[in-house]
Amino acid sequence: MNERLTELQNWLQTNEVEAAFLTSTESIFYLSGFFSDPHERLLALAIFADADPFLVCPQMEVPDAKQAGWDGDIIGYTDIEDPWEKVKQAVAKRGLAINKMAIEKEHMNVERYEQIQQHFGAPALVPAEEKLQKMRMIKSEDEMVKIREACRLADFAIEVGVSEIHEGKTEMEILATIEYELKKAGVSQMSFSTMVLTGKNGASPHGTPGNTKVQRGDLVLFDLGVVHEGYCSDITRTVAYGDINDKQAEIYETVRMAQEAAVAASMPGVACSEVDLIARNIIRDKGYGEFFPHRLGHGLGISVHEYPSLTETNSLKLQSGMVYTIEPGIYVPNVAGVRIEDDLLITETGCEALTKYPKSLQIIK
Amino acid sequence: MNERLTELQNWLQTNEVEAAFLTSTESIFYLSGFFSDPHERLLALAIFADADPFLVCPQMEVPDAKQAGWDGDIIGYTDIEDPWEKVKQAVAKRGLAINKMAIEKEHMNVERYEQIQQHFGAPALVPAEEKLQKMRMIKSEDEMVKIREACRLADFAIEVGVSEIHEGKTEMEILATIEYELKKAGVSQMSFSTMVLTGKNGASPHGTPGNTKVQRGDLVLFDLGVVHEGYCSDITRTVAYGDINDKQAEIYETVRMAQEAAVAASMPGVACSEVDLIARNIIRDKGYGEFFPHRLGHGLGISVHEYPSLTETNSLKLQSGMVYTIEPGIYVPNVAGVRIEDDLLITETGCEALTKYPKSLQIIK
Repeated sequence: MNERLTELQNWLQTNEVEAAFLTSTESIFYLSGFFSDPHERLLALAIFADADPFLVCPQMEVPDAKQAGWDGDIIGYTDIEDPWEKVKQAVAKRGLAINKMAIEKEHMNVERYEQIQQHFGAPALVPAEEKLQKMRMIKSEDEMVKIREACRLADFAIEVGVSEIHEGKTEMEILATIEYELKKAGVSQMSFSTMVLTGKNGASPHGTPGNTKVQRGDLVLFDLGVVHEGYCSDITRTVAYGDINDKQAEIYETVRMAQEAAVAASMPGVACSEVDLIARNIIRDKGYGEFFPHRLGHGLGISVHEYPSLTETNSLKLQSGMVYTIEPGIYVPNVAGVRIEDDLLITETGCEALTKYPKSLQIIK
Repeated sequence: MNERLTELQNWLQTNEVEAAFLTSTESIFYLSGFFSDPHERLLALAIFADADPFLVCPQMEVPDAKQAGWDGDIIGYTDIEDPWEKVKQAVAKRGLAINKMAIEKEHMNVERYEQIQQHFGAPALVPAEEKLQKMRMIKSEDEMVKIREACRLADFAIEVGVSEIHEGKTEMEILATIEYELKKAGVSQMSFSTMVLTGKNGASPHGTPGNTKVQRGDLVLFDLGVVHEGYCSDITRTVAYGDINDKQAEIYETVRMAQEAAVAASMPGVACSEVDLIARNIIRDKGYGEFFPHRLGHGLGISVHEYPSLTETNSLKLQSGMVYTIEPGIYVPNVAGVRIEDDLLITETGCEALTKYPKSLQIIK
């Protein structure tokens, strides 16, 4: 068993929980090295306080699991077999009575919950999330290397996007070129749907790219991320196409100041809420508080949204090894939408910005 | 309320279920027209046997929901508010006692299940899936129009991919061009991660595109789909680059015959299992049964995998208005991987192939 599995097994033993039955793609990748998203088919990793773990996956993925380095038992099943019967047998073979079982309550669905209740004598279910989140929240050196590369590629993507801003180009055309260049650079997956937004679209925090053409006097917002060897980056930059008006410039500068102040405040021992409020208060003081409707940022790693969550109420203190985004935004309908986002790594003494694309207002002529 | 909501409300009344609390992006889009995937944040549609429905979504998406045409109540919440308290109030305002609640058991997670148990007096939970699946399984004229266009774009994608096969090109380079051309044609989302696989990679039913270069004598497999106005297509074609050997050709012809026989058998009144077995028996008779490890196909629509499921055990009978894939494959390690997949619409008298790219063996010189 690897170190992470051993840590989880120790946690089970300490808490007198006989088994963990984990079902999310992300946790299974984190603990086993096997990345798989079999959609509605069952994927699970069973870990026991006092027995060997096993993996459950569709039969056709068994070779992939082995190739990914999983050397424990694997329960494969075809589309016409009931995986639960096989799981039941594997647990019975281990001769275990399960009184308490740890599951991912935010991932496991009610149907599977009912299967577990039925097949394993209705064990008490305890949440596995907090332990897994805590483990995943502090990145190893190996994870940092992967995230750094994902961030480098995100910077490159912004460069491509900015260089594609020309009269008459649509959001979708610019987006197409960004992803084309990324794929040629070996990127096979984005962290989420890439956003290129301009004009009125940019003034929605969750707009959708379309056939809107960039026009002089507009802001262009890029929000994108790259998955590199299973790890995500997430960057946002907003640039001006031609000269913008004073209001747009004021909004941009407010977001930039808020973002940079929150970056500067990021260091071990500071609460997440403090970092959020440093940015939020700058935006509120300028009168734009109501136009910043989301949290300051979120952790990232295997998931593009993980812990810690940077809200104005989260008292969790920053620790060395955490990786998260800082992404304040102001969205004033029909005026401007600006967001600036970096990915940060908390170090022993402060922080390291993993995304490095410049943040001073860039005016594309 | 629209027709679909009315049908679901009638179903609640008939079954003496006071409320449905639906949480999947797909069901909410189907019933409300509002497409949103707020990740870990709560998105829900509450429908009542005897009261007006309401939608729950993050505050910042409230304008999008209205724009999408939802004209009922909307409960928005910010990142620092507890949406469940607001939901509880909205239910209380309607003066309802909920003894039975319909949920999507395959989608709702255990955490939300526990919130419902806690806030709504532990109602008995009944699965909403079967009803929703049945409704979604039969496509309306409007849905068919969207799926046809998604399929037309999938055909176009295969054309682009095949035209990009040249000495020294990698899987990722070909994939990059396919998606670039699709984006320029206005496609903003693929149904799933596009696959371009060649050589040994093609012989895995779930391979991952990488830097493998196409080589003469190899097969090249494309599996991809396009989302058009919320509806998915899904196509697979396998072509030869240069001359292939007799074994590869035999495998290709076996898959093609199996696929075409299953298409020919697709008509109202035939069981899903019969269609699966027609293809499966052709492959078994040629001695490749063990190398066809998955079901014949799956329904598609808002989801790329929905009902009906074409397995050798599903006795469900085909009906006019169903849309599904037929995608037999044979994967012999180190020899060849071939899959051919079309999307079919069951008509009153037979079926219509929605994907039309040719299936006879194409040899790229």
